[in-house]
Amino acid sequence: MNFQSKCNMAEANASAISLGPIGVFDSGYGGLTILRELRNVLPEYDYLYLGDNARAPYGSRSFEVIYRYTLEAVRELFNRGCPLVILACNTASAKALRSIQQRDLPNIDPTRRVLGVIRPTVEILGQVSKTGHIGVLGTPGTVASHSYMIETTKIFPEMKVTEQACPLWVPIVENSEAEDDGADYFVRKYIDELLQKDPDVDTFVLGCTHYPLLINKIRRYAPDGVRILEQGRLVADSLKDYLCRHPEMECRLSKGGDAEFLTSENTEKFDLHLHQCLPAIP
Amino acid sequence: MNFQSKCNMAEANASAISLGPIGVFDSGYGGLTILRELRNVLPEYDYLYLGDNARAPYGSRSFEVIYRYTLEAVRELFNRGCPLVILACNTASAKALRSIQQRDLPNIDPTRRVLGVIRPTVEILGQVSKTGHIGVLGTPGTVASHSYMIETTKIFPEMKVTEQACPLWVPIVENSEAEDDGADYFVRKYIDELLQKDPDVDTFVLGCTHYPLLINKIRRYAPDGVRILEQGRLVADSLKDYLCRHPEMECRLSKGGDAEFLTSENTEKFDLHLHQCLPAIP
Repeated sequence: MNFQSKCNMAEANASAISLGPIGVFDSGYGGLTILRELRNVLPEYDYLYLGDNARAPYGSRSFEVIYRYTLEAVRELFNRGCPLVILACNTASAKALRSIQQRDLPNIDPTRRVLGVIRPTVEILGQVSKTGHIGVLGTPGTVASHSYMIETTKIFPEMKVTEQACPLWVPIVENSEAEDDGADYFVRKYIDELLQKDPDVDTFVLGCTHYPLLINKIRRYAPDGVRILEQGRLVADSLKDYLCRHPEMECRLSKGGDAEFLTSENTEKFDLHLHQCLPAIP
Repeated sequence: MNFQSKCNMAEANASAISLGPIGVFDSGYGGLTILRELRNVLPEYDYLYLGDNARAPYGSRSFEVIYRYTLEAVRELFNRGCPLVILACNTASAKALRSIQQRDLPNIDPTRRVLGVIRPTVEILGQVSKTGHIGVLGTPGTVASHSYMIETTKIFPEMKVTEQACPLWVPIVENSEAEDDGADYFVRKYIDELLQKDPDVDTFVLGCTHYPLLINKIRRYAPDGVRILEQGRLVADSLKDYLCRHPEMECRLSKGGDAEFLTSENTEKFDLHLHQCLPAIP
Protein backbone atom coordinates (compact mmCIF):
# COMPACT_ATOMS: atom_id res chain seq x y z
CA MET A 1 0.00 0.00 0.00
CA ASN A 2 1.44 3.35 -1.04
CA PHE A 3 0.32 6.30 1.01
CA GLN A 4 0.16 9.53 -0.97
CA SER A 5 1.87 12.27 0.94
CA LYS A 6 0.62 15.79 0.98
CA CYS A 7 3.52 17.07 3.05
CA ASN A 8 7.13 16.72 4.00
CA MET A 9 6.77 18.26 7.45
CA ALA A 10 7.05 14.99 9.35
CA GLU A 11 10.10 13.82 7.47
CA ALA A 12 11.85 17.14 7.88
CA ASN A 13 11.19 17.30 11.60
CA ALA A 14 12.11 13.69 12.16
CA SER A 15 15.45 13.89 10.46
CA ALA A 16 16.50 17.27 11.80
CA ILE A 17 15.83 17.24 15.52
CA SER A 18 14.18 13.91 16.26
CA LEU A 19 10.90 15.55 17.14
CA GLY A 20 7.78 14.39 15.41
CA PRO A 21 4.04 15.01 15.08
CA ILE A 22 1.28 13.08 16.76
CA GLY A 23 0.11 10.42 14.31
CA VAL A 24 -3.64 10.04 13.92
CA PHE A 25 -4.83 6.98 12.04
CA ASP A 26 -8.28 6.15 10.74
CA SER A 27 -9.55 3.74 8.12
CA GLY A 28 -11.17 6.68 6.36
CA TYR A 29 -12.52 10.13 7.06
CA GLY A 30 -14.25 9.51 10.42
CA GLY A 31 -11.08 10.07 12.41
CA LEU A 32 -11.14 13.69 11.30
CA THR A 33 -13.77 14.21 14.01
CA ILE A 34 -11.14 13.09 16.54
CA LEU A 35 -8.42 15.22 14.96
CA ARG A 36 -10.65 18.29 15.19
CA GLU A 37 -11.03 17.90 18.95
CA LEU A 38 -7.35 17.06 19.43
CA ARG A 39 -6.47 20.33 17.76
CA ASN A 40 -9.00 22.20 19.86
CA VAL A 41 -7.69 20.83 23.15
CA LEU A 42 -4.00 20.49 22.22
CA PRO A 43 -3.45 23.13 19.53
CA GLU A 44 0.28 23.52 20.12
CA TYR A 45 1.31 20.15 18.65
CA ASP A 46 1.80 19.05 15.05
CA TYR A 47 -0.43 16.30 13.69
CA LEU A 48 -0.01 13.83 10.84
CA TYR A 49 -3.30 12.23 9.82
CA LEU A 50 -3.32 8.99 7.83
CA GLY A 51 -6.54 7.78 6.20
CA ASP A 52 -6.54 4.34 4.57
CA ASN A 53 -9.36 5.51 2.32
CA ALA A 54 -8.50 3.11 -0.50
CA ARG A 55 -9.42 0.18 1.75
CA ALA A 56 -12.09 1.71 4.00
CA PRO A 57 -14.41 0.87 5.65
CA TYR A 58 -12.87 -1.64 8.06
CA GLY A 59 -16.04 -2.27 10.11
CA SER A 60 -17.01 -5.63 8.65
CA ARG A 61 -13.54 -7.02 7.86
CA SER A 62 -11.90 -9.93 9.68
CA PHE A 63 -9.48 -9.62 12.58
CA GLU A 64 -6.51 -10.66 10.41
CA VAL A 65 -7.21 -8.05 7.75
CA ILE A 66 -7.86 -5.20 10.21
CA TYR A 67 -4.72 -6.09 12.17
CA ARG A 68 -2.57 -6.22 9.01
CA TYR A 69 -3.87 -2.92 7.62
CA THR A 70 -3.58 -1.14 10.99
CA LEU A 71 -0.02 -2.35 11.54
CA GLU A 72 0.95 -1.09 8.07
CA ALA A 73 -0.46 2.32 8.96
CA VAL A 74 1.32 2.47 12.31
CA ARG A 75 4.63 1.56 10.65
CA GLU A 76 4.06 4.26 8.04
CA LEU A 77 3.44 6.90 10.72
CA PHE A 78 6.49 5.73 12.69
CA ASN A 79 8.61 5.89 9.53
CA ARG A 80 7.46 9.45 9.08
CA GLY A 81 8.66 10.37 12.53
CA CYS A 82 5.63 10.11 14.82
CA PRO A 83 6.68 9.15 18.36
CA LEU A 84 3.03 8.60 19.29
CA VAL A 85 0.12 7.27 17.23
CA ILE A 86 -3.58 7.50 18.08
CA LEU A 87 -5.77 4.83 16.49
CA ALA A 88 -8.73 7.17 15.89
CA CYS A 89 -10.77 4.24 14.62
CA ASN A 90 -12.83 2.11 16.94
CA THR A 91 -12.61 -0.99 14.75
CA ALA A 92 -8.80 -0.77 14.71
CA SER A 93 -8.71 0.01 18.44
CA ALA A 94 -10.98 -2.95 19.14
CA LYS A 95 -9.29 -5.51 16.95
CA ALA A 96 -5.65 -4.49 16.43
CA LEU A 97 -4.47 -2.28 19.31
CA ARG A 98 -3.70 -4.97 21.85
CA SER A 99 -1.71 -7.11 19.40
CA ILE A 100 0.28 -4.11 18.19
CA GLN A 101 1.01 -2.89 21.73
CA GLN A 102 2.01 -6.28 23.08
CA ARG A 103 3.50 -8.10 20.12
CA ASP A 104 4.77 -5.59 17.58
CA LEU A 105 5.76 -2.44 19.47
CA PRO A 106 8.54 -4.11 21.52
CA ASN A 107 10.18 -5.24 18.27
CA ILE A 108 9.63 -2.06 16.26
CA ASP A 109 10.55 0.57 18.86
CA PRO A 110 9.64 0.16 22.54
CA THR A 111 9.98 3.91 23.18
CA ARG A 112 7.08 4.80 20.89
CA ARG A 113 3.43 4.53 21.84
CA VAL A 114 0.17 3.53 20.17
CA LEU A 115 -3.05 4.52 21.94
CA GLY A 116 -6.67 3.72 21.10
CA VAL A 117 -10.00 5.47 21.53
CA ILE A 118 -11.94 2.86 23.48
CA ARG A 119 -10.23 3.10 26.85
CA PRO A 120 -10.57 6.91 27.15
CA THR A 121 -14.23 6.61 26.25
CA VAL A 122 -14.90 3.91 28.81
CA GLU A 123 -13.07 5.73 31.62
CA ILE A 124 -15.64 8.52 31.64
CA LEU A 125 -18.68 6.25 32.02
CA GLY A 126 -18.61 6.29 35.84
CA GLN A 127 -19.16 10.05 35.79
CA VAL A 128 -22.09 10.13 33.37
CA SER A 129 -24.35 7.12 33.88
CA LYS A 130 -26.85 7.07 36.76
CA THR A 131 -28.48 3.72 36.00
CA GLY A 132 -25.17 2.03 35.14
CA HIS A 133 -26.81 0.78 31.92
CA ILE A 134 -24.68 1.70 28.93
CA GLY A 135 -25.59 1.32 25.25
CA VAL A 136 -22.72 1.10 22.78
CA LEU A 137 -23.47 1.83 19.12
CA GLY A 138 -20.70 0.60 16.82
CA THR A 139 -19.70 -1.13 13.60
CA PRO A 140 -20.25 -4.89 13.29
CA GLY A 141 -16.51 -5.40 13.85
CA THR A 142 -16.36 -3.32 17.02
CA VAL A 143 -19.46 -4.99 18.43
CA ALA A 144 -18.24 -8.49 17.54
CA SER A 145 -15.00 -7.83 19.43
CA HIS A 146 -16.96 -6.94 22.62
CA SER A 147 -14.11 -4.55 23.39
CA TYR A 148 -16.38 -1.95 24.98
CA MET A 149 -17.99 -4.55 27.22
CA ILE A 150 -14.62 -6.04 28.21
CA GLU A 151 -12.97 -2.68 28.92
CA THR A 152 -15.97 -1.32 30.82
CA THR A 153 -16.25 -4.40 32.99
CA LYS A 154 -12.59 -4.07 33.98
CA ILE A 155 -13.12 -0.57 35.39
CA PHE A 156 -16.81 -0.69 36.35
CA PRO A 157 -17.71 -4.33 37.00
CA GLU A 158 -21.19 -3.36 38.18
CA MET A 159 -22.17 -1.73 34.90
CA LYS A 160 -24.33 -3.40 32.27
CA VAL A 161 -23.13 -2.82 28.71
CA THR A 162 -25.40 -3.54 25.74
CA GLU A 163 -23.80 -3.44 22.31
CA GLN A 164 -25.63 -2.64 19.08
CA ALA A 165 -24.19 -3.01 15.57
CA CYS A 166 -25.22 -0.22 13.19
CA PRO A 167 -23.88 -1.56 9.88
CA LEU A 168 -25.41 1.06 7.59
CA TRP A 169 -24.47 4.21 9.49
CA VAL A 170 -20.97 4.46 8.00
CA PRO A 171 -22.14 3.82 4.41
CA ILE A 172 -24.91 6.40 4.91
CA VAL A 173 -22.39 9.02 6.03
CA GLU A 174 -19.77 8.11 3.42
CA ASN A 175 -22.34 8.26 0.61
CA SER A 176 -23.75 11.64 1.64
CA GLU A 177 -27.18 10.25 2.55
CA ALA A 178 -27.07 11.53 6.16
CA GLU A 179 -29.76 14.15 5.55
CA ASP A 180 -32.17 11.71 3.95
CA ASP A 181 -35.38 10.21 5.36
CA GLY A 182 -33.90 6.76 4.72
CA ALA A 183 -31.11 7.65 7.13
CA ASP A 184 -33.79 8.42 9.72
CA TYR A 185 -35.16 4.93 9.22
CA PHE A 186 -31.84 3.23 9.92
CA VAL A 187 -30.88 5.56 12.77
CA ARG A 188 -34.18 4.83 14.48
CA LYS A 189 -34.01 1.10 13.72
CA TYR A 190 -30.68 0.48 15.47
CA ILE A 191 -31.55 2.71 18.43
CA ASP A 192 -34.88 0.88 18.85
CA GLU A 193 -33.11 -2.48 18.70
CA LEU A 194 -30.70 -1.35 21.40
CA LEU A 195 -33.51 -0.13 23.67
CA GLN A 196 -35.44 -3.35 23.17
CA LYS A 197 -32.44 -5.23 24.54
CA ASP A 198 -32.12 -2.88 27.54
CA PRO A 199 -34.77 -0.20 28.16
CA ASP A 200 -32.82 1.14 31.17
CA VAL A 201 -29.89 2.45 29.14
CA ASP A 202 -29.23 6.08 30.10
CA THR A 203 -25.99 6.60 28.16
CA PHE A 204 -25.25 6.07 24.47
CA VAL A 205 -21.62 5.67 23.48
CA LEU A 206 -21.06 6.59 19.84
CA GLY A 207 -18.43 3.92 19.29
CA CYS A 208 -17.44 4.93 15.77
CA THR A 209 -15.82 8.15 14.63
CA HIS A 210 -18.33 8.56 11.78
CA TYR A 211 -21.33 8.70 14.07
CA PRO A 212 -20.94 12.33 15.23
CA LEU A 213 -21.79 13.20 11.62
CA LEU A 214 -25.27 11.69 12.32
CA ILE A 215 -25.63 13.36 15.71
CA ASN A 216 -28.78 15.35 14.94
CA LYS A 217 -30.72 12.28 13.90
CA ILE A 218 -29.34 10.21 16.80
CA ARG A 219 -30.51 12.92 19.22
CA ARG A 220 -33.93 12.88 17.54
CA TYR A 221 -34.50 9.18 18.22
CA ALA A 222 -32.75 8.84 21.57
CA PRO A 223 -35.18 8.92 24.52
CA ASP A 224 -35.31 12.08 26.62
CA GLY A 225 -32.64 12.10 29.29
CA VAL A 226 -30.26 9.76 27.52
CA ARG A 227 -26.73 11.16 27.49
CA ILE A 228 -24.93 10.78 24.16
CA LEU A 229 -21.16 10.48 24.39
CA GLU A 230 -19.09 11.59 21.41
CA GLN A 231 -15.49 10.46 21.52
CA GLY A 232 -13.53 13.38 20.13
CA ARG A 233 -13.42 15.50 23.27
CA LEU A 234 -12.97 12.49 25.54
CA VAL A 235 -9.97 11.27 23.53
CA ALA A 236 -8.48 14.75 23.44
CA ASP A 237 -8.85 15.26 27.21
CA SER A 238 -7.39 11.83 27.83
CA LEU A 239 -4.38 12.54 25.62
CA LYS A 240 -3.80 15.83 27.42
CA ASP A 241 -3.76 13.96 30.71
CA TYR A 242 -1.47 11.29 29.26
CA LEU A 243 1.06 13.86 28.11
CA CYS A 244 1.06 15.51 31.54
CA ARG A 245 1.86 12.15 33.10
CA HIS A 246 4.46 11.23 30.45
CA PRO A 247 6.87 14.14 29.97
CA GLU A 248 9.34 11.76 28.29
CA MET A 249 6.83 11.45 25.43
CA GLU A 250 5.65 15.05 25.52
CA CYS A 251 9.19 16.35 24.93
CA ARG A 252 9.48 14.26 21.74
CA LEU A 253 6.49 15.95 20.08
CA SER A 254 7.06 18.74 17.61
CA LYS A 255 5.19 21.95 18.29
CA GLY A 256 4.06 24.15 15.47
CA GLY A 257 0.31 23.73 15.37
CA ASP A 258 0.41 22.16 11.91
CA ALA A 259 -1.80 19.37 10.55
CA GLU A 260 -0.80 17.35 7.52
CA PHE A 261 -2.55 14.51 5.78
CA LEU A 262 -1.71 11.21 4.14
CA THR A 263 -4.12 9.01 2.24
CA SER A 264 -3.99 5.70 0.38
CA GLU A 265 -6.56 7.15 -2.07
CA ASN A 266 -5.74 9.95 -4.46
CA THR A 267 -5.22 13.28 -2.80
CA GLU A 268 -7.86 15.23 -4.78
CA LYS A 269 -10.56 12.84 -3.57
CA PHE A 270 -9.29 13.14 0.00
CA ASP A 271 -9.26 16.94 -0.18
CA LEU A 272 -12.85 16.96 -1.38
CA HIS A 273 -14.03 14.87 1.56
CA LEU A 274 -11.83 16.77 3.97
CA HIS A 275 -13.52 20.03 3.12
CA GLN A 276 -16.99 18.49 2.83
CA CYS A 277 -16.79 16.69 6.16
CA LEU A 278 -14.86 19.19 8.17
CA PRO A 279 -14.79 22.62 6.62
CA ALA A 280 -13.11 23.98 9.74
CA ILE A 281 -9.93 22.01 9.07
CA PRO A 282 -7.63 23.91 6.71
CA MET B 1 -2.14 -8.17 -1.24
CA ASN B 2 -2.06 -11.89 -0.43
CA PHE B 3 -4.90 -13.90 -1.83
CA GLN B 4 -5.84 -16.87 0.34
CA SER B 5 -6.16 -19.93 -1.80
CA LYS B 6 -8.78 -22.55 -1.21
CA CYS B 7 -7.49 -24.82 -3.96
CA ASN B 8 -4.54 -26.00 -5.97
CA MET B 9 -6.56 -26.97 -9.04
CA ALA B 10 -5.48 -24.04 -11.14
CA GLU B 11 -1.80 -24.40 -10.38
CA ALA B 12 -1.87 -28.15 -11.05
CA ASN B 13 -3.65 -27.76 -14.36
CA ALA B 14 -1.48 -24.90 -15.46
CA SER B 15 1.80 -26.62 -14.85
CA ALA B 16 0.81 -30.05 -16.15
CA ILE B 17 -0.86 -29.50 -19.50
CA SER B 18 -1.05 -25.72 -19.95
CA LEU B 19 -4.82 -25.72 -19.70
CA GLY B 20 -6.44 -23.44 -17.18
CA PRO B 21 -9.76 -22.38 -15.71
CA ILE B 22 -11.80 -19.33 -16.62
CA GLY B 23 -10.90 -16.61 -14.13
CA VAL B 24 -13.79 -14.65 -12.67
CA PHE B 25 -12.91 -11.51 -10.74
CA ASP B 26 -15.07 -9.37 -8.53
CA SER B 27 -14.32 -6.83 -5.82
CA GLY B 28 -16.45 -8.90 -3.46
CA TYR B 29 -19.30 -11.35 -3.48
CA GLY B 30 -21.50 -9.81 -6.17
CA GLY B 31 -19.65 -11.55 -8.99
CA LEU B 32 -20.95 -14.84 -7.66
CA THR B 33 -24.23 -13.99 -9.41
CA ILE B 34 -22.26 -13.94 -12.69
CA LEU B 35 -20.41 -17.15 -11.85
CA ARG B 36 -23.71 -18.92 -11.17
CA GLU B 37 -24.98 -18.14 -14.67
CA LEU B 38 -21.63 -18.96 -16.29
CA ARG B 39 -21.81 -22.41 -14.72
CA ASN B 40 -25.41 -22.85 -15.82
CA VAL B 41 -24.69 -21.95 -19.45
CA LEU B 42 -21.13 -23.32 -19.71
CA PRO B 43 -21.00 -26.11 -17.11
CA GLU B 44 -18.18 -28.04 -18.74
CA TYR B 45 -15.40 -25.56 -17.91
CA ASP B 46 -13.43 -25.04 -14.72
CA TYR B 47 -13.71 -21.69 -12.95
CA LEU B 48 -11.43 -19.86 -10.56
CA TYR B 49 -13.22 -17.05 -8.71
CA LEU B 50 -11.24 -14.27 -7.05
CA GLY B 51 -12.96 -11.90 -4.61
CA ASP B 52 -10.98 -8.92 -3.31
CA ASN B 53 -13.20 -8.91 -0.24
CA ALA B 54 -10.57 -7.33 2.01
CA ARG B 55 -10.76 -4.13 -0.07
CA ALA B 56 -14.37 -4.19 -1.30
CA PRO B 57 -16.46 -2.32 -2.23
CA TYR B 58 -14.78 -0.57 -5.16
CA GLY B 59 -17.80 1.53 -6.21
CA SER B 60 -16.72 4.86 -4.77
CA ARG B 61 -12.94 4.55 -5.16
CA SER B 62 -10.84 6.58 -7.59
CA PHE B 63 -9.78 5.44 -11.05
CA GLU B 64 -6.17 4.93 -9.95
CA VAL B 65 -7.10 2.70 -7.03
CA ILE B 66 -9.63 0.61 -8.97
CA TYR B 67 -7.16 0.16 -11.83
CA ARG B 68 -4.33 -0.87 -9.48
CA TYR B 69 -6.46 -3.36 -7.56
CA THR B 70 -7.98 -4.86 -10.71
CA LEU B 71 -4.61 -5.28 -12.38
CA GLU B 72 -3.30 -7.07 -9.29
CA ALA B 73 -6.24 -9.46 -9.46
CA VAL B 74 -5.80 -10.13 -13.17
CA ARG B 75 -2.10 -10.87 -12.65
CA GLU B 76 -2.96 -13.24 -9.80
CA LEU B 77 -5.45 -15.14 -11.97
CA PHE B 78 -2.94 -15.28 -14.84
CA ASN B 79 -0.26 -16.57 -12.47
CA ARG B 80 -2.65 -19.30 -11.44
CA GLY B 81 -3.07 -20.40 -15.02
CA CYS B 82 -6.23 -18.69 -16.29
CA PRO B 83 -5.97 -18.05 -20.06
CA LEU B 84 -9.13 -15.90 -19.87
CA VAL B 85 -10.39 -13.58 -17.14
CA ILE B 86 -13.89 -12.12 -16.83
CA LEU B 87 -14.12 -8.88 -14.85
CA ALA B 88 -17.44 -9.72 -13.22
CA CYS B 89 -17.53 -6.29 -11.62
CA ASN B 90 -19.05 -3.31 -13.35
CA THR B 91 -16.85 -0.80 -11.56
CA ALA B 92 -13.69 -2.64 -12.65
CA SER B 93 -15.09 -3.12 -16.18
CA ALA B 94 -15.93 0.56 -16.37
CA LYS B 95 -12.72 1.97 -14.99
CA ALA B 96 -9.92 -0.57 -15.50
CA LEU B 97 -10.75 -2.87 -18.44
CA ARG B 98 -9.69 -0.64 -21.30
CA SER B 99 -6.32 0.26 -19.70
CA ILE B 100 -5.58 -3.39 -18.93
CA GLN B 101 -6.55 -4.55 -22.43
CA GLN B 102 -4.64 -1.84 -24.25
CA ARG B 103 -1.68 -1.06 -22.01
CA ASP B 104 -0.94 -4.06 -19.80
CA LEU B 105 -2.03 -7.18 -21.67
CA PRO B 106 0.41 -6.74 -24.57
CA ASN B 107 3.27 -6.66 -22.05
CA ILE B 108 2.05 -9.44 -19.74
CA ASP B 109 0.90 -12.02 -22.31
CA PRO B 110 -0.80 -10.99 -25.56
CA THR B 111 -2.34 -14.45 -26.00
CA ARG B 112 -4.51 -14.13 -22.89
CA ARG B 113 -7.77 -12.25 -22.73
CA VAL B 114 -9.60 -10.05 -20.23
CA LEU B 115 -13.30 -9.41 -20.87
CA GLY B 116 -15.77 -7.17 -19.05
CA VAL B 117 -19.49 -7.26 -18.34
CA ILE B 118 -20.59 -3.93 -19.80
CA ARG B 119 -20.24 -4.65 -23.51
CA PRO B 120 -22.29 -7.92 -23.42
CA THR B 121 -25.00 -6.10 -21.47
CA VAL B 122 -25.15 -3.21 -23.90
CA GLU B 123 -25.24 -5.44 -26.99
CA ILE B 124 -28.64 -6.85 -26.04
CA LEU B 125 -30.35 -3.47 -25.65
CA GLY B 126 -31.46 -3.25 -29.27
CA GLN B 127 -33.55 -6.37 -28.80
CA VAL B 128 -35.34 -5.35 -25.61
CA SER B 129 -36.10 -1.63 -25.64
CA LYS B 130 -39.05 -0.30 -27.63
CA THR B 131 -38.77 3.36 -26.66
CA GLY B 132 -34.97 3.39 -26.96
CA HIS B 133 -34.85 5.00 -23.51
CA ILE B 134 -32.53 3.03 -21.23
CA GLY B 135 -32.04 3.52 -17.49
CA VAL B 136 -28.75 2.29 -16.02
CA LEU B 137 -28.61 1.72 -12.25
CA GLY B 138 -25.03 1.44 -11.00
CA THR B 139 -22.46 2.34 -8.37
CA PRO B 140 -21.19 5.93 -8.17
CA GLY B 141 -17.96 4.79 -9.86
CA THR B 142 -19.70 3.10 -12.76
CA VAL B 143 -22.02 6.05 -13.28
CA ALA B 144 -19.21 8.59 -13.06
CA SER B 145 -17.32 6.72 -15.79
CA HIS B 146 -20.32 6.99 -18.16
CA SER B 147 -19.17 3.65 -19.59
CA TYR B 148 -22.71 2.44 -20.24
CA MET B 149 -23.62 5.62 -22.05
CA ILE B 150 -20.43 5.56 -24.14
CA GLU B 151 -20.68 1.87 -25.06
CA THR B 152 -24.39 2.09 -25.87
CA THR B 153 -23.95 5.11 -28.08
CA LYS B 154 -21.28 3.30 -30.08
CA ILE B 155 -23.69 0.50 -31.02
CA PHE B 156 -27.05 2.27 -30.83
CA PRO B 157 -26.42 5.98 -31.44
CA GLU B 158 -30.15 6.70 -31.44
CA MET B 159 -30.72 5.43 -27.91
CA LYS B 160 -31.04 7.69 -24.89
CA VAL B 161 -29.20 6.41 -21.82
CA THR B 162 -29.91 7.85 -18.37
CA GLU B 163 -27.57 6.82 -15.57
CA GLN B 164 -28.49 6.68 -11.89
CA ALA B 165 -26.05 6.13 -9.02
CA CYS B 166 -27.41 3.91 -6.23
CA PRO B 167 -24.70 4.31 -3.59
CA LEU B 168 -26.44 2.45 -0.76
CA TRP B 169 -27.59 -0.66 -2.62
CA VAL B 170 -24.28 -2.51 -2.26
CA PRO B 171 -23.90 -1.68 1.47
CA ILE B 172 -27.52 -2.74 2.01
CA VAL B 173 -26.87 -6.12 0.37
CA GLU B 174 -23.48 -6.62 2.01
CA ASN B 175 -24.86 -5.84 5.45
CA SER B 176 -27.84 -8.18 5.15
CA GLU B 177 -30.43 -5.38 5.22
CA ALA B 178 -31.97 -6.32 1.86
CA GLU B 179 -35.22 -7.55 3.43
CA ASP B 180 -35.71 -4.43 5.49
CA ASP B 181 -38.20 -1.58 5.01
CA GLY B 182 -35.25 0.82 4.93
CA ALA B 183 -34.00 -1.01 1.86
CA ASP B 184 -37.40 -0.36 0.27
CA TYR B 185 -36.89 3.32 0.91
CA PHE B 186 -33.54 3.47 -0.87
CA VAL B 187 -34.61 1.15 -3.71
CA ARG B 188 -37.60 3.37 -4.41
CA LYS B 189 -35.60 6.57 -4.00
CA TYR B 190 -33.05 5.81 -6.71
CA ILE B 191 -35.66 4.39 -9.11
CA ASP B 192 -37.80 7.51 -8.64
CA GLU B 193 -34.79 9.75 -9.26
CA LEU B 194 -34.05 7.87 -12.48
CA LEU B 195 -37.66 8.16 -13.70
CA GLN B 196 -37.74 11.85 -12.88
CA LYS B 197 -34.78 12.32 -15.21
CA ASP B 198 -36.44 10.28 -17.99
CA PRO B 199 -40.04 9.07 -17.59
CA ASP B 200 -39.88 7.23 -20.95
CA VAL B 201 -37.35 4.64 -19.80
CA ASP B 202 -38.65 1.17 -20.65
CA THR B 203 -35.54 -0.86 -19.75
CA PHE B 204 -33.58 -0.94 -16.50
CA VAL B 205 -30.02 -2.23 -16.69
CA LEU B 206 -28.85 -3.56 -13.32
CA GLY B 207 -25.30 -2.33 -13.78
CA CYS B 208 -23.84 -3.92 -10.66
CA THR B 209 -23.52 -7.59 -9.82
CA HIS B 210 -24.96 -7.07 -6.34
CA TYR B 211 -28.26 -5.73 -7.60
CA PRO B 212 -29.85 -9.08 -8.55
CA LEU B 213 -29.87 -9.73 -4.80
CA LEU B 214 -32.37 -6.81 -4.53
CA ILE B 215 -34.42 -7.91 -7.53
CA ASN B 216 -37.75 -8.39 -5.70
CA LYS B 217 -37.72 -4.86 -4.35
CA ILE B 218 -36.53 -3.42 -7.67
CA ARG B 219 -39.44 -5.16 -9.43
CA ARG B 220 -41.81 -3.75 -6.81
CA TYR B 221 -40.88 -0.13 -7.55
CA ALA B 222 -40.27 -0.37 -11.29
CA PRO B 223 -43.25 0.84 -13.36
CA ASP B 224 -45.36 -1.81 -15.09
CA GLY B 225 -43.92 -2.82 -18.42
CA VAL B 226 -40.34 -1.88 -17.63
CA ARG B 227 -37.96 -4.66 -18.56
CA ILE B 228 -35.25 -5.34 -15.96
CA LEU B 229 -31.98 -6.70 -17.33
CA GLU B 230 -29.82 -8.80 -15.03
CA GLN B 231 -26.31 -9.35 -16.31
CA GLY B 232 -25.51 -12.93 -15.37
CA ARG B 233 -27.28 -14.64 -18.22
CA LEU B 234 -26.25 -11.99 -20.75
CA VAL B 235 -22.59 -12.34 -19.82
CA ALA B 236 -22.79 -16.13 -19.94
CA ASP B 237 -24.46 -16.18 -23.37
CA SER B 238 -21.93 -13.67 -24.64
CA LEU B 239 -19.01 -15.77 -23.40
CA LYS B 240 -20.50 -18.86 -25.05
CA ASP B 241 -20.64 -16.97 -28.31
CA TYR B 242 -17.09 -15.67 -27.83
CA LEU B 243 -15.70 -19.17 -27.29
CA CYS B 244 -17.46 -20.40 -30.45
CA ARG B 245 -15.80 -17.63 -32.40
CA HIS B 246 -12.40 -18.13 -30.73
CA PRO B 247 -11.47 -21.82 -30.79
CA GLU B 248 -7.83 -20.87 -30.10
CA MET B 249 -8.97 -19.70 -26.66
CA GLU B 250 -11.56 -22.41 -26.10
CA CYS B 251 -8.95 -25.16 -26.52
CA ARG B 252 -6.85 -23.62 -23.73
CA LEU B 253 -9.61 -23.96 -21.12
CA SER B 254 -9.60 -26.89 -18.75
CA LYS B 255 -12.79 -28.89 -18.60
CA GLY B 256 -13.83 -30.57 -15.42
CA GLY B 257 -16.83 -28.57 -14.23
CA ASP B 258 -15.03 -27.43 -11.08
CA ALA B 259 -15.27 -24.07 -9.33
CA GLU B 260 -12.63 -22.91 -6.89
CA PHE B 261 -12.36 -19.71 -4.94
CA LEU B 262 -9.71 -17.21 -3.86
CA THR B 263 -10.24 -14.32 -1.49
CA SER B 264 -8.14 -11.54 -0.01
CA GLU B 265 -10.20 -11.91 3.19
CA ASN B 266 -9.98 -14.95 5.44
CA THR B 267 -11.52 -18.05 3.94
CA GLU B 268 -13.99 -18.78 6.76
CA LYS B 269 -15.60 -15.38 6.25
CA PHE B 270 -15.74 -15.94 2.50
CA ASP B 271 -17.32 -19.39 2.94
CA LEU B 272 -20.01 -17.93 5.16
CA HIS B 273 -20.98 -15.33 2.56
CA LEU B 274 -20.67 -17.83 -0.26
CA HIS B 275 -23.26 -20.07 1.29
CA GLN B 276 -25.45 -17.19 2.51
CA CYS B 277 -25.47 -15.42 -0.84
CA LEU B 278 -25.57 -18.36 -3.17
CA PRO B 279 -26.55 -21.59 -1.48
CA ALA B 280 -26.62 -23.34 -4.85
CA ILE B 281 -22.85 -22.95 -5.28
CA PRO B 282 -20.99 -25.83 -3.59
